[in-house]
Amino acid sequence: MNLLLLEDGDFVAEGRALLRGRRLKHLHEVHRAEAGDNLRVGRLAGLMGEGRLLRLDADEAEIEILTLDQPPPAKLPLTLLLALPRPKMFKRVLQTVASMGVPRLVLLNSYRVEKSFWQTPFLQPEAIREQLILGLEQARDTVLPEVTIEKRFKPFVEDRLPALAAGSLGLVGHPGAWPACPRAVDAPVTLAIGPEGGWIPYEVDKLQEAGLAPVQLGERILRVETAVTALLARLF
Amino acid sequence: MNLLLLEDGDFVAEGRALLRGRRLKHLHEVHRAEAGDNLRVGRLAGLMGEGRLLRLDADEAEIEILTLDQPPPAKLPLTLLLALPRPKMFKRVLQTVASMGVPRLVLLNSYRVEKSFWQTPFLQPEAIREQLILGLEQARDTVLPEVTIEKRFKPFVEDRLPALAAGSLGLVGHPGAWPACPRAVDAPVTLAIGPEGGWIPYEVDKLQEAGLAPVQLGERILRVETAVTALLARLF
Repeated sequence: MNLLLLEDGDFVAEGRALLRGRRLKHLHEVHRAEAGDNLRVGRLAGLMGEGRLLRLDADEAEIEILTLDQPPPAKLPLTLLLALPRPKMFKRVLQTVASMGVPRLVLLNSYRVEKSFWQTPFLQPEAIREQLILGLEQARDTVLPEVTIEKRFKPFVEDRLPALAAGSLGLVGHPGAWPACPRAVDAPVTLAIGPEGGWIPYEVDKLQEAGLAPVQLGERILRVETAVTALLARLF
Repeated sequence: MNLLLLEDGDFVAEGRALLRGRRLKHLHEVHRAEAGDNLRVGRLAGLMGEGRLLRLDADEAEIEILTLDQPPPAKLPLTLLLALPRPKMFKRVLQTVASMGVPRLVLLNSYRVEKSFWQTPFLQPEAIREQLILGLEQARDTVLPEVTIEKRFKPFVEDRLPALAAGSLGLVGHPGAWPACPRAVDAPVTLAIGPEGGWIPYEVDKLQEAGLAPVQLGERILRVETAVTALLARLF
């Protein structure tokens, strides 16, 4: 938690917030904070600045906001389409996506996404939000990515993806004899990353028809989380 | 497990291997393999090819090696110095390092590495090897990275790092007003990545004296695992 991210519900008065739960525990156990300490704070969807810890008890922490004058870092010019990862990986991927500055994430079905993954409680909006917040706190950002869920591959890719990708560089990360992923692009990007095991050829064809060009990162097969980070670090 | 990695002890005859334990469980539960299936196999420190699953019981799997004729993918021209991550992160970082093709990893002390981290059982050679193997199986590689442990920062950085880094592009990943990390370098690299919270200024000074130049990846503070992937994807 490199940024203490405050939400409307945390405020008890103008410039005063009370914390309980996870963030309180973190202040105690990881920051080992004490009353009087200054902390980096941010307001969800707003500015960042400095706060002072007025009081830190077992039950709650009271924060005084000193300044809120810095904008959060810029987001990447990116829409990321991601085949729904397995539940264990999914939580970490959400944190990574938020911490790297992805503004729009579309969770997509694919032949190799097990049907059971769509039943996971991690897909509930509150559970997704919780992981995104952890990513924002890590990276020092205040703006939640927008996450949409597309459980049907074909209608999404045929009917909505062409408009979504219009005016951007459309790419599909996919191992094989494709061009290498471009570097340091100076354009908005729509990037699709497949499931463990990759897209099936039919899906690659459909993504290509929608305007996305396959690109690869070399012979090594990377975990989804690693592939997301590696592709974004190379593209931007 | 995108590659079934076989060790000398797995072989019961020329071209025949017996598996138990983790890999057997994986064949059953993840691959849902059946007798007669062909599998990608590799020999630790050797070549990769194809095998056939002759028999798959509850207790063991018998594999016949059909071919072993493909070299593993090239390693990166890199020595990675990493401040020892916290235990929970450490296992994943080792997998990431192996899967991305890092050939040499030096685990280093730093002011912000908690002393207790050096006591973790994950630092035992067998525990390190286990995580590296998982990374090789993920990426389809057969060659273990070489891992060394340097519990004393100053003597390592003063006495041994200058020779280690000689003839390479020496870099320290460090947030702040430094040049951006270079892209697509065409040279061997020695790269140092700090702990959660970063190197302290004294450490940055010492690393600079040893020939490493600080570089940054932007305003966002990334987890160690994400920073490793992002820096390598950008450099190579």
